[in-house]
Amino acid sequence: MTPLEYLQQTQAKRMEELFEFLRFPSVSAKSEHKADLQRCAEWLRKHFQDLGLSSSLFPTSGNPIVYAEYLVGPQRPTILYYGHYDVQPPEPLELWASPPFEPVVRDGCIYARGSSDDKGQTFTHLKGIEAILKAEGTLPVNVKFLIEGQEEGGSPEDLSRFIQKEKKRLQADIVVVSDTSQFSKDLPAVTFGLRGIASVEIFAYGPNRDLHSGTFGGAIGNPVNLLCEMIGRLHDKNGRILVPGFYQDCRLPGKWEREQFRRLPYREANYRKELGVTALYGEKSYSTFERTWVRPTLDVNGIQGGYQGEGGKTIIPSRASAKITMRLVPDMKPADIAGKLEKYLKKIAPPCIRLEMVYHGGAEAVVVPTDGPWLEAARCAIRKGFGKAPVFMKEGGSIPVANNFKSSLGLDTLFLGFGLNSDNIHSPNEHFRVVDFERGCRTAVALPYEIARVKAG
Amino acid sequence: MTPLEYLQQTQAKRMEELFEFLRFPSVSAKSEHKADLQRCAEWLRKHFQDLGLSSSLFPTSGNPIVYAEYLVGPQRPTILYYGHYDVQPPEPLELWASPPFEPVVRDGCIYARGSSDDKGQTFTHLKGIEAILKAEGTLPVNVKFLIEGQEEGGSPEDLSRFIQKEKKRLQADIVVVSDTSQFSKDLPAVTFGLRGIASVEIFAYGPNRDLHSGTFGGAIGNPVNLLCEMIGRLHDKNGRILVPGFYQDCRLPGKWEREQFRRLPYREANYRKELGVTALYGEKSYSTFERTWVRPTLDVNGIQGGYQGEGGKTIIPSRASAKITMRLVPDMKPADIAGKLEKYLKKIAPPCIRLEMVYHGGAEAVVVPTDGPWLEAARCAIRKGFGKAPVFMKEGGSIPVANNFKSSLGLDTLFLGFGLNSDNIHSPNEHFRVVDFERGCRTAVALPYEIARVKAG
Repeated sequence: MTPLEYLQQTQAKRMEELFEFLRFPSVSAKSEHKADLQRCAEWLRKHFQDLGLSSSLFPTSGNPIVYAEYLVGPQRPTILYYGHYDVQPPEPLELWASPPFEPVVRDGCIYARGSSDDKGQTFTHLKGIEAILKAEGTLPVNVKFLIEGQEEGGSPEDLSRFIQKEKKRLQADIVVVSDTSQFSKDLPAVTFGLRGIASVEIFAYGPNRDLHSGTFGGAIGNPVNLLCEMIGRLHDKNGRILVPGFYQDCRLPGKWEREQFRRLPYREANYRKELGVTALYGEKSYSTFERTWVRPTLDVNGIQGGYQGEGGKTIIPSRASAKITMRLVPDMKPADIAGKLEKYLKKIAPPCIRLEMVYHGGAEAVVVPTDGPWLEAARCAIRKGFGKAPVFMKEGGSIPVANNFKSSLGLDTLFLGFGLNSDNIHSPNEHFRVVDFERGCRTAVALPYEIARVKAG
Repeated sequence: MTPLEYLQQTQAKRMEELFEFLRFPSVSAKSEHKADLQRCAEWLRKHFQDLGLSSSLFPTSGNPIVYAEYLVGPQRPTILYYGHYDVQPPEPLELWASPPFEPVVRDGCIYARGSSDDKGQTFTHLKGIEAILKAEGTLPVNVKFLIEGQEEGGSPEDLSRFIQKEKKRLQADIVVVSDTSQFSKDLPAVTFGLRGIASVEIFAYGPNRDLHSGTFGGAIGNPVNLLCEMIGRLHDKNGRILVPGFYQDCRLPGKWEREQFRRLPYREANYRKELGVTALYGEKSYSTFERTWVRPTLDVNGIQGGYQGEGGKTIIPSRASAKITMRLVPDMKPADIAGKLEKYLKKIAPPCIRLEMVYHGGAEAVVVPTDGPWLEAARCAIRKGFGKAPVFMKEGGSIPVANNFKSSLGLDTLFLGFGLNSDNIHSPNEHFRVVDFERGCRTAVALPYEIARVKAG
């Protein structure tokens, strides 16, 4: 029996196991789910153990890190797999067609929070290793798994501290992450770069209490109006960010990569239609791929202030706040950018309100070298798993841990995305196509052999 | 026993009855409280009945209207009292020192939602009438009470339909409303004008779902950013509203009233300190009183969009919305102003979002004639109740029903405010000073005699 035959024979069981994994409401943004994250981590550890890997939980100040390994010998290359078992909050719940933590297959897709980001994608590598072990009794490479539980909160200090502390244990040749996407349906991709991120929250404080907007309106600055006004001054009419110095360190896209992007299939009408918008947005003189992959952004992820319930409430709210993330490109430093934003906001804040900004951390952009052997191994594995050669692309999202692997362990990261942009990750009705889950598992079987091959070659 | 002696002897009982009234969570903005409003109305009807008035409930499409009357004869003048038993939502609950619907007296104040706005103030007139009836066995005037349950929602069509339909029943000489404030602590006032209001809600729709801000940020218009940008374009740097035509019909304050306002005690430092702001806001070349009483405004009462919970969520939200009210001065028409706002917003909305505006209704500003006998009656009653002559002022809030009384019944309205601007109406820890409640009750005893006097005179 070959590993692929094993995969074929165990499809139903594999799906059931994934469903078990998806049922944990492992929402790291909410402290009420702390116990669920713990239980999810323990389930995962036990699963590794059942596959024959040695596994353990490493506690952190937040949720535990699951670590597992199967070592065949120092003469063999070592893959360090990284993934995360925590998920985004499922809200707004009323927009889900089925409950977010009760996975179901509908129209060929697995619907559940985390199905694509990242439980489903991570799980392919467990199943790939399982298949090789069951079929061959051993592996062509050493494997190490580091699955964390705080990625959706930006992978705070805990993880970098762990990597720093466990440098020796984590030694490897290459990191593999499946937390990105195919280029499009049935067109797989290898991702050779990611944007960085800087997260902040801004608070505008006005009067010491909500005031009657009739009695006081006209004489008291309204924190919602004024916060809006400030946010309105963060971009110019052409989508360019107005924070002084924002673009100062920003590396311009290279000729080679712009050329790669130009080759990719793209039809703006389809893109607009898929997202339900009548017009796109953003910096002039850059294509959609450039704007989302190699240009920085500033987006309000959430805003609140005043009365938000049914009906009305005639108040001048005492405060307003906004959660903001900025996506960064190579050479931009998160703390530096956050500092520039704070300076600008404080400068433009009117005297009748008090502005505060909290910096929630960030990560620099990631660049995968395009000239080493690794991209070739990834390309071949994907071709085998998907039956089709992948394209090369970048990704606008951030996987901060890749910076850690580079700086602490000197390792590059291969991004093999099995999901789709249309998987609704981070939004209601997240799903993962069954066919992509299966192709992912087949790619996961092929990858260790390819890594062994290019390393030997 | 005189009416005032009766008041003195029944103070404890009066307070207990008010507490009963305040315990109903009669929040008209929330449909979940519909039954509470019904119970509150029935309690009030019963209370009128116990005082010897004939009373009944008039159902509406929303909450019932409580009506009561005591008629002594057509040769006597008739007062129509108006008040409301519904209250503002109590949120944010965590900022209340004691639960909003469990009234307590603390530091000489009655703390409860509705204590000042408007259950407590309305209740003074019931107690005034009770005192006269108990002491004299009759009244110097005919009295009619109309207490509604939808004022905080802007007194929708139901009320005007009722007034229109019950024109005959409601015939009177003057309307009396206690839903405004003293000028300041221990400086009572007669209010000779109120601003009007226009309420709208605006919705900015972007992509058909929340999108990952990494994957799509830079190419897709963010409804929160863009709604903020539009709200930021509603005022200029000097607090002037930029909606074309907004000021077109706006009546400028007259020389006489500006003079009245200039005479009122005012210290900006105290005003700022009381509200906890370091600077005021608003149109240049108008005083604080003018900006809050005779100039129009536009305030966002609440805004929401995207993720608002703990932690972060890296999304481009699919929508954002804001509740807005505009305060209007004489000659501005609410629907006209709302229409101008909509036109402007739709003009400045970028093509990547879809903007919708819902008009929730409004009311024109109210002007009380300063030359008839009524202001004099009010002045004398307040002087008796408070032991001090009142000043003449205006008020920035809106009491839309006064427009109805004028247009449907031809009646002017006297505003006798017993509360204080610092009562925290519409915000946490609403309260009503016990001493003001008592002065209000004494004024309520004096008023019918004064009305009878000026009418006879």
